[in-house]
Amino acid sequence: MAHKFINKIAPGETVNDIYLVRDAVLRSTSRGDPYIAMFVSDRTGQLNGRMWQASEAIYRSLPKPGFVHIQGRSELYQNNLQIVVNSIGIVDAEKVAIEDFLSRTKKDIGQMFSEVKSMLQQIKNQQLKELAGEFLSDEALMRNFCRAPAAIQMHHNYLGGLLEHTHNMLRVATAILPMYPDVQPGLVLAGIFIHDMGKTEELSYETAFSYTDSGQLIGHISKTLLMLHRKAESLAAKGKRIDGPVLDALGHIILSHHRTYEFGSPKLPAAPEAFMVCYIDDLDAKMNQVVSAINNEASDSNWTGWQRPLETRLYRKRLE
Amino acid sequence: MAHKFINKIAPGETVNDIYLVRDAVLRSTSRGDPYIAMFVSDRTGQLNGRMWQASEAIYRSLPKPGFVHIQGRSELYQNNLQIVVNSIGIVDAEKVAIEDFLSRTKKDIGQMFSEVKSMLQQIKNQQLKELAGEFLSDEALMRNFCRAPAAIQMHHNYLGGLLEHTHNMLRVATAILPMYPDVQPGLVLAGIFIHDMGKTEELSYETAFSYTDSGQLIGHISKTLLMLHRKAESLAAKGKRIDGPVLDALGHIILSHHRTYEFGSPKLPAAPEAFMVCYIDDLDAKMNQVVSAINNEASDSNWTGWQRPLETRLYRKRLE
Amino acid sequence: MAHKFINKIAPGETVNDIYLVRDAVLRSTSRGDPYIAMFVSDRTGQLNGRMWQASEAIYRSLPKPGFVHIQGRSELYQNNLQIVVNSIGIVDAEKVAIEDFLSRTKKDIGQMFSEVKSMLQQIKNQQLKELAGEFLSDEALMRNFCRAPAAIQMHHNYLGGLLEHTHNMLRVATAILPMYPDVQPGLVLAGIFIHDMGKTEELSYETAFSYTDSGQLIGHISKTLLMLHRKAESLAAKGKRIDGPVLDALGHIILSHHRTYEFGSPKLPAAPEAFMVCYIDDLDAKMNQVVSAINNEASDSNWTGWQRPLETRLYRKRLE
Amino acid sequence: MAHKFINKIAPGETVNDIYLVRDAVLRSTSRGDPYIAMFVSDRTGQLNGRMWQASEAIYRSLPKPGFVHIQGRSELYQNNLQIVVNSIGIVDAEKVAIEDFLSRTKKDIGQMFSEVKSMLQQIKNQQLKELAGEFLSDEALMRNFCRAPAAIQMHHNYLGGLLEHTHNMLRVATAILPMYPDVQPGLVLAGIFIHDMGKTEELSYETAFSYTDSGQLIGHISKTLLMLHRKAESLAAKGKRIDGPVLDALGHIILSHHRTYEFGSPKLPAAPEAFMVCYIDDLDAKMNQVVSAINNEASDSNWTGWQRPLETRLYRKRLE
Amino acid sequence: MAHKFINKIAPGETVNDIYLVRDAVLRSTSRGDPYIAMFVSDRTGQLNGRMWQASEAIYRSLPKPGFVHIQGRSELYQNNLQIVVNSIGIVDAEKVAIEDFLSRTKKDIGQMFSEVKSMLQQIKNQQLKELAGEFLSDEALMRNFCRAPAAIQMHHNYLGGLLEHTHNMLRVATAILPMYPDVQPGLVLAGIFIHDMGKTEELSYETAFSYTDSGQLIGHISKTLLMLHRKAESLAAKGKRIDGPVLDALGHIILSHHRTYEFGSPKLPAAPEAFMVCYIDDLDAKMNQVVSAINNEASDSNWTGWQRPLETRLYRKRLE
Amino acid sequence: MAHKFINKIAPGETVNDIYLVRDAVLRSTSRGDPYIAMFVSDRTGQLNGRMWQASEAIYRSLPKPGFVHIQGRSELYQNNLQIVVNSIGIVDAEKVAIEDFLSRTKKDIGQMFSEVKSMLQQIKNQQLKELAGEFLSDEALMRNFCRAPAAIQMHHNYLGGLLEHTHNMLRVATAILPMYPDVQPGLVLAGIFIHDMGKTEELSYETAFSYTDSGQLIGHISKTLLMLHRKAESLAAKGKRIDGPVLDALGHIILSHHRTYEFGSPKLPAAPEAFMVCYIDDLDAKMNQVVSAINNEASDSNWTGWQRPLETRLYRKRLE
Repeated sequence: MAHKFINKIAPGETVNDIYLVRDAVLRSTSRGDPYIAMFVSDRTGQLNGRMWQASEAIYRSLPKPGFVHIQGRSELYQNNLQIVVNSIGIVDAEKVAIEDFLSRTKKDIGQMFSEVKSMLQQIKNQQLKELAGEFLSDEALMRNFCRAPAAIQMHHNYLGGLLEHTHNMLRVATAILPMYPDVQPGLVLAGIFIHDMGKTEELSYETAFSYTDSGQLIGHISKTLLMLHRKAESLAAKGKRIDGPVLDALGHIILSHHRTYEFGSPKLPAAPEAFMVCYIDDLDAKMNQVVSAINNEASDSNWTGWQRPLETRLYRKRLE
Repeated sequence: MAHKFINKIAPGETVNDIYLVRDAVLRSTSRGDPYIAMFVSDRTGQLNGRMWQASEAIYRSLPKPGFVHIQGRSELYQNNLQIVVNSIGIVDAEKVAIEDFLSRTKKDIGQMFSEVKSMLQQIKNQQLKELAGEFLSDEALMRNFCRAPAAIQMHHNYLGGLLEHTHNMLRVATAILPMYPDVQPGLVLAGIFIHDMGKTEELSYETAFSYTDSGQLIGHISKTLLMLHRKAESLAAKGKRIDGPVLDALGHIILSHHRTYEFGSPKLPAAPEAFMVCYIDDLDAKMNQVVSAINNEASDSNWTGWQRPLETRLYRKRLE
Repeated sequence: MAHKFINKIAPGETVNDIYLVRDAVLRSTSRGDPYIAMFVSDRTGQLNGRMWQASEAIYRSLPKPGFVHIQGRSELYQNNLQIVVNSIGIVDAEKVAIEDFLSRTKKDIGQMFSEVKSMLQQIKNQQLKELAGEFLSDEALMRNFCRAPAAIQMHHNYLGGLLEHTHNMLRVATAILPMYPDVQPGLVLAGIFIHDMGKTEELSYETAFSYTDSGQLIGHISKTLLMLHRKAESLAAKGKRIDGPVLDALGHIILSHHRTYEFGSPKLPAAPEAFMVCYIDDLDAKMNQVVSAINNEASDSNWTGWQRPLETRLYRKRLE
Repeated sequence: MAHKFINKIAPGETVNDIYLVRDAVLRSTSRGDPYIAMFVSDRTGQLNGRMWQASEAIYRSLPKPGFVHIQGRSELYQNNLQIVVNSIGIVDAEKVAIEDFLSRTKKDIGQMFSEVKSMLQQIKNQQLKELAGEFLSDEALMRNFCRAPAAIQMHHNYLGGLLEHTHNMLRVATAILPMYPDVQPGLVLAGIFIHDMGKTEELSYETAFSYTDSGQLIGHISKTLLMLHRKAESLAAKGKRIDGPVLDALGHIILSHHRTYEFGSPKLPAAPEAFMVCYIDDLDAKMNQVVSAINNEASDSNWTGWQRPLETRLYRKRLE
Repeated sequence: MAHKFINKIAPGETVNDIYLVRDAVLRSTSRGDPYIAMFVSDRTGQLNGRMWQASEAIYRSLPKPGFVHIQGRSELYQNNLQIVVNSIGIVDAEKVAIEDFLSRTKKDIGQMFSEVKSMLQQIKNQQLKELAGEFLSDEALMRNFCRAPAAIQMHHNYLGGLLEHTHNMLRVATAILPMYPDVQPGLVLAGIFIHDMGKTEELSYETAFSYTDSGQLIGHISKTLLMLHRKAESLAAKGKRIDGPVLDALGHIILSHHRTYEFGSPKLPAAPEAFMVCYIDDLDAKMNQVVSAINNEASDSNWTGWQRPLETRLYRKRLE
Repeated sequence: MAHKFINKIAPGETVNDIYLVRDAVLRSTSRGDPYIAMFVSDRTGQLNGRMWQASEAIYRSLPKPGFVHIQGRSELYQNNLQIVVNSIGIVDAEKVAIEDFLSRTKKDIGQMFSEVKSMLQQIKNQQLKELAGEFLSDEALMRNFCRAPAAIQMHHNYLGGLLEHTHNMLRVATAILPMYPDVQPGLVLAGIFIHDMGKTEELSYETAFSYTDSGQLIGHISKTLLMLHRKAESLAAKGKRIDGPVLDALGHIILSHHRTYEFGSPKLPAAPEAFMVCYIDDLDAKMNQVVSAINNEASDSNWTGWQRPLETRLYRKRLE
């Protein structure tokens, strides 16, 4: 049976489906009876949930967060729709249709990753090649790299989004590097491959997209720099020393790839390769964001709704 | 004999060479004697010139501006180097080595223009094709298009710079359009071809790079929009009507291609094609600016001097 | 019978009145039955409308947008008031009390327009006089000029608002030009008359105030410049050539009249006349906006509510 | 004999004229001999002065600042022109042609002041009338009000400038108040008359234009507010109480008349009268600044030099 | 019986308790019957109130604003909770538990004030000492100083907050002045004591926290400066003259203590003491704001909700 | 013999002293003769140097950069003072009075460092204590920590400046932590100790203050984060694991201590300890900058010259 999506639930309906529960808390009513407050969500939205016939045992059994089967009904409370939960039971994550909870890239992850590896073969500089290889041979990291979204909102905000974004950036770089012969191609390619790697740690994408604590405190830019240095140290431990200027040139690309201070870059781009990575990153992110907004617009209007980060509505009419 | 460049003149030297004179004015000394004040320049700089044995006849004979042969000497006056002019004679512009006065692209103008025409063949939409064709068949305009710089400072600031910039943008677009299948390629290509066409009128580039009066009052963005509408009207006069939405979509690309209000765009980009033209424009301009600054740095330092518009020095050391 | 305004409809009321319908779409319920979703509005607001007993025939019959007579009732759905439509019938726009849908200036349009024409008589420069005359003799344009609002929100946002704003600016200019003898009066008067003329094309004001597609893509500033050049060309066709510097001086006033880049001017004011038009425009717009907010405040408070564009509340208490 | 202006002195000239000396300091050469360092100026500029044959007696005799007769010569030192002073003698300020040191309005001060008084007669509100009267009857203050510049740079930066600016603002207000019938005229007129009164204390304009210590620490906006309250208190002492709301409405106009925080207003305008005073102030200041720059441009160019506060050059060509 | 707080009222409940009523207005229903609209609030929030069986007599009897006993019930209207009032009776403010309406500092007001007085003893400069003394001996003012909040939102927004903030700033200054021996301690201490004194007049804190009319028009910074000058004048009246430079130095600290123009300071700090007061003020305000947000967070999350003025969420997890 | 400082050299003097030479280049005159261009400096400034009788051997012998004994003379060339070098000889850095080239803190470095160590004893949390200890036991790093300046310009820009700044910040924190009992003191103290440690690598301070290549590309903020992680790893290697949340909390303080994106922080402060470190850092830096500018002002004026980063002149007059 098809999943009943959160944004399709009307007041007064019976609820009997699997949802993600999070931030569950055990509280007391004014009469002293225990109840559980929680958020109930899927990829279309989130509602308050209340279980009035609750016990500490039920509360302790709940995943924080995780998937549950909820039976109950929907009602309006203080002008907001909420779910009154009658019974709640943990569901094995493996039995869940994860695509009801997290969107996923429409492209083929295996093929994209294989093309990424193939494009990185173009790197000629030995040390850059070895750094890229050290990332590629970290299997746990590569699994996350292929699974993580590129962002929670804005652009490529779905499973595989980080890979899709990195893959497309590498394709663009490969296509335009011949037009800019003064630019060092290996630095650009290695820089693109690594530039957002810290998002695998900044974001959480098991059951829902969110920031990790560490991600919020440190951010993916600094996390990527730390990863780069860890990889250089593990190469050094194998006797393959990476020179300071190589690490610094790559590190500079990572630190400056948001291009301005106001977008969180602690350094402004100061090398041709850093500028090129900035522009390809911004181009690819914006094209994804703009095209998604246009394709996802529900109305028949020639214009999407207001896009706050772009400070405009977007024109949808096609001429060609 | 090699031209004595302005930035090589030391105080107390004899001057005997061709320079560009401009802003000549006839004034009187405190004793009532007439003299001529003027600016004397070539592509390396500009000095004050003073001709003390002047007459109204000499003054009237001077080009404003234009090339002259100057005999005289250099001296320090109030801490500034100036040229004391003993005799001055008009020089036919055709006898002047124009490259001493205006830098020029290092690429082949004929070949670039022919590649531009060839890339524009990719446009499939009939009306866009005809608009591009109407520009291409305006010979006087195309001569200027092939000659104008793309800017006075900043990037591609040399004869042929506008063509070089447009040509490279078209190459980049041709290379990356396949990665963005939702983007309408004809609009991007026509938009790139036309986007800076107004610079042919905004700038003056006969004897020195400067702004025209009209250019300063109106700007190249609005001038390009006016040109586009003039071309549409002349097509209409031939019975080839361009639809409003086509004109508006192209016009929007022109008006928004500086991407933010603060850079003089009266409209923010609101269509995928407008975003793509913005990014390709900015990328190509910045790569030219950054690589030029690095290549023109006189010192052996790993860093260029401070680049005010980029708010940084640039790193010159190569790893590959 | 008085119109039942949208902002007076409570949940559970019977609805039986004329409204503006727009953005109607034919959709299917989960059971596969067709229904029509639409917006139902008048000048006081807008609600969702749903017609459950719908057919493609009814859908096709609907104006997009236009006036309709709706019978149905109001209900709360997912916390929002909506109109459930039982029957819907097209209403001839001429039978509609348009003032229920669009507010209108409280001043006399005929008198204002006649005063505008009279004030423009002060222009002495022949070419400016002819340009103004060319606009004045474009009857279709002048009808729109007398009808258009000056904005959708902010200031003079009612039928006749553009005329009222232009008229008052001309009165202010006429009054203060004698205090600024270095300023060229003809340029100021012609500049004011024309400065917002493109709003007649940027905005739609037949049934509701909105932006046209072309208006959103191009904007009234650039549209006004295009209009100016079209008028100059039609004068030229009659043998009355307008000099470049005249067109550029007027064009510059148009392009710079928002005074800063961030408000969408592609050029900063660079002539005394451009500065004067800026200030008169801003003064008149702000006085209208401030006085309207004060007069429209519903409460008895000494202060209006927060005015976001002004970053303040406004003081309403009078001393004189 | 005509004064030899500072900006006309060339290196190696004999100097024998009256100048303003300031910031004189007694120092020792490396050999231990005393010398006096000072600034030597008139209204056209300022040079370093050095008196090598100095004594503490001479130093003590010098005005700080004040007028002196200097005999000496000009020379270049470390690339800067300086005056080597051989003898120096105090000059009675009354014997100095003050117009060589401070520019002065070209308008008639007496007539402007009398028109100001006459325009203030329009104030009908009794308390506002009395406040204006209390300022007018403060003779020492009115002497300064008629003499002070409106600024050190930027606009109306000459003796009588504050009066000229206030006078013209009152003329503009008188002319346009009829177009804005919802605005309280007495508040606008009194507000304009008082709004910059603190400049009489913020600036020093006896021998040269500069800021007083108190002016730099407190600023004219706050000084004007303090003055207003002192006048209200002296009226109260005569039994003429000014109500709180009257003082606050006027005070608010004073505090908000720079219109934005970034220009030093501690309050944003929040009443129609405050907005009107802002706009008239800014209009009159900018028109003065723009017209002065155009009229003072030395070259024959159609454009002035770059005007940093306006971020543009100004167009000087006239059409009418 | 415990007060039923506004934020605990659900739809459909009986209401029978004391609340603050404000902005009451007498209006007519569409049938012409009179009713009273009002706001009903306590320290937890505010709801619309409607009394349908109203008369002008009841309306006139209502405090504007003030405490009332309300009997009625809650209901949802147009998606908002409102109170339908059946009967309403004025309540003597002295019988009200004011802490249900206004929060209060958790510290001991008497002790803090006594420590403030004691710390001010450190001031050695005689004139600063007398100015501080003149404030301290103004009993009405000191009562307000001990009662006023430091702000309506943001930080120390409770009764006694102004005192608590000032007291803690004085403690910080006392602790760190020894590390900065070039800073004049008396100025810092007197400056801190006085810096926000105008908040006693800017804010209203009898029955609810709000701005006074005068406070909104003038602001606490300028009000504090006026107070300082009034105290100096009353000292002068007793023969104790305060020198201009002393008043200006203190005045400058007051005017610049928000540190930037954008936060409403009309002067930027220009003396070491002004910088120190700025930093201590900002530090103490931010620490209060940050710690309060963390302690008041209702959820168990490691993070608070989004803090708009700080542009971040706050991390709540403790390590020590 | 006292060093002849660069800023005391007049044109035409004999030069015979030790200077720092840098950026030496071997060039050819237009006649083809080799010469050496270089910069000649000490702590008071820098001049161009030219050695006309040069050879490649001399060129190769020069330090790049380093100390040399120069014999020659000063002259004006193209309006700039330069040194014509007759002979040049390398000088052992140990024989140079380094204080002629680099300024130095006036405080006792040994005592400050010992107080730093003592204040760090207050840290109770075991892991923070061990991290601090790991830094303290890195002798090479501590030598640099005691020697590095805190900045090249702005504040504490002298040898020992980093230590002096850190030391004073720790003193301030120790003094005020008791006023903020909700703040975790160990995090604040460890955070202050470490926060600028990366400046030891960002800056070069052997012979002159400058940025290292790596410093310019990466910046001290990111370098400090990398150092922190290296120390954690070396502790881990000794079996002393530092928990992720501890590293992240300290890392967050480092990354956010510039407080805004525009000052290069990639993260905004989001914890009470991060806010406290920001404010103490900014306070201590500004007090040093302000007091230094006041004390270093050469004139007798009540005001320093314009301080561009502070956007004001500073008031120097003392009242106490």
